[in-house]
Amino acid sequence: MRRVLALSACVALLALPAMADPLPSWNDTDSKARIIAFVDAVTDPTGDDFVPTADRIAVFDNDGTLWAEQPVYFQLLYAIDRLGDADPSTLTTPALQAAAAGDMSGVMAEGEEGILEVIHATHSGMTVDAFQADVAAWAETATNPATGMAYTDMTYQPMVELLRYLRDEGFVTYIVSGGGVHFIRALAEDAYGIPPRQVIGSLLASEYQVTEDGPQIVKLPEVAFIDDKEGKPVAIDRIIGARPILAGGNSDGDFAMLEWTTAGDGPRMGLLVHHTDGDRAFAYDRDSHIGRLERGLDEGPERGWVIVDMAQDWSRIWTGTPE
Amino acid sequence: MRRVLALSACVALLALPAMADPLPSWNDTDSKARIIAFVDAVTDPTGDDFVPTADRIAVFDNDGTLWAEQPVYFQLLYAIDRLGDADPSTLTTPALQAAAAGDMSGVMAEGEEGILEVIHATHSGMTVDAFQADVAAWAETATNPATGMAYTDMTYQPMVELLRYLRDEGFVTYIVSGGGVHFIRALAEDAYGIPPRQVIGSLLASEYQVTEDGPQIVKLPEVAFIDDKEGKPVAIDRIIGARPILAGGNSDGDFAMLEWTTAGDGPRMGLLVHHTDGDRAFAYDRDSHIGRLERGLDEGPERGWVIVDMAQDWSRIWTGTPE
Repeated sequence: MRRVLALSACVALLALPAMADPLPSWNDTDSKARIIAFVDAVTDPTGDDFVPTADRIAVFDNDGTLWAEQPVYFQLLYAIDRLGDADPSTLTTPALQAAAAGDMSGVMAEGEEGILEVIHATHSGMTVDAFQADVAAWAETATNPATGMAYTDMTYQPMVELLRYLRDEGFVTYIVSGGGVHFIRALAEDAYGIPPRQVIGSLLASEYQVTEDGPQIVKLPEVAFIDDKEGKPVAIDRIIGARPILAGGNSDGDFAMLEWTTAGDGPRMGLLVHHTDGDRAFAYDRDSHIGRLERGLDEGPERGWVIVDMAQDWSRIWTGTPE
Repeated sequence: MRRVLALSACVALLALPAMADPLPSWNDTDSKARIIAFVDAVTDPTGDDFVPTADRIAVFDNDGTLWAEQPVYFQLLYAIDRLGDADPSTLTTPALQAAAAGDMSGVMAEGEEGILEVIHATHSGMTVDAFQADVAAWAETATNPATGMAYTDMTYQPMVELLRYLRDEGFVTYIVSGGGVHFIRALAEDAYGIPPRQVIGSLLASEYQVTEDGPQIVKLPEVAFIDDKEGKPVAIDRIIGARPILAGGNSDGDFAMLEWTTAGDGPRMGLLVHHTDGDRAFAYDRDSHIGRLERGLDEGPERGWVIVDMAQDWSRIWTGTPE
């Protein structure tokens, strides 16, 4: 009987979450050690760097940080898929025609205005509920043209583990993305365990309408807020109302968010995902049109930010299985 | 020994929160019974109306709903107090001069533009941190001209109890106010137990600046969003991303928020605080410039909303003690 009890105690100990590796898809490199040391420090109630749970706020960019952003932002690929099914008579501009033909470089050639035409044509004129239901339905069957994988399989397993680890340690985890808030919310709870109210993103204007189906929020073809670059700390202040203690990103669009986060008092962590892995994923940084990372690479190390080397630091890339 | 144990068990039972009246400052009227019946229904896991905690979202207007709004919005009284201390050479408009002289009707006579001049002069040109520290410092000593009470003593005790009761029952409680988000955040945690990230309000524009004191968010003299009327459901969708199941307000500025909330599927509650108590507080509704309540009184009862009669339903008004 005594041996059974002792065995039970051992099994119970082994089952304790704290005993398991919280980041199994991270190699045992400096990046992983620094992340764990930071979390240990802010959660140790006897230490000088202890942070109460109310202040354990972590913010993460989405495209290129939590999931991939190649060959182009997934939200744009959604729009292209939807325009491919559109009535041809509605394709009134070169950007819309290029999108409907699946010609991404043709869309990009029309510049920011062309991208906005594509977004407005596919992201407005419906209720928020209808839009989000459509995005969720699209994600169930759509596949990424570069990998053939489902989009929600192209989340980064190491980052999903990091989000879960932080929440297990009393953090609240937010997405702060240049992508559209409604698009991300349609997928973020399943993909990352992040509920709608912890998703911050760019906004189209919207309005309240009392329709035949009752009162609804309807999306309009007009940009209300771009949640990128200096807009990220502005949006965090507007919505969260506090300076996070941890910020993660992958491009210079995240620089201001990391700069503001890590300039606060007490322990802080900035983290940049550096796309170094052309074999298992995609390799790009200073010269990329998407997710360009230059200032972060130049200044991040001296600012004490963790530069995650995907090829070296991650033993596994995707949550799903590549073809 | 057995009697001691039995006594201990009784004491323990009496100490259980569930045994205590969750709303001691509410009289035993229909309003209180309906609130408790609603909360019981949505929290009973065996009932048809059960709502999981993730969806137990409650939103409340602030001015006139959670604290008073007489003789005028407290935020405007803050601005008037601050202009009273301002350099006279900066008082370049009739509205600013009236405000500095404490002449509220003079400010109101200048219309919305005059009020905006007063808000911009006192709410911009500083960092968010500095502004919120100043509001908190003001609230420590300032008194309301109508009652002589401290402003934070003029929160409604029955509503503070309702907020706490809802949180104890697994709700998340939000403020959704026409007032400025930074002003409310400076006080809401102490006054209501509501943290900054659960405060939604009107917004001045703001920008990210790297100052001598490091990166900061600086408030600008420009309105970015008015969180009133149809703006309230729009802001809830933008920030919370879900339709609440309970909404409380006191004026027609809250009508759209209650309409949208109570039109959702499943159990819903709309609640309007009707200012019927001219003896202990202030009595006003249809003809008031502040907190006008007309459509809500006309349509609320048939929509099934709880119309709280302050004189009848509340045994106590203020959290503080009137002079």
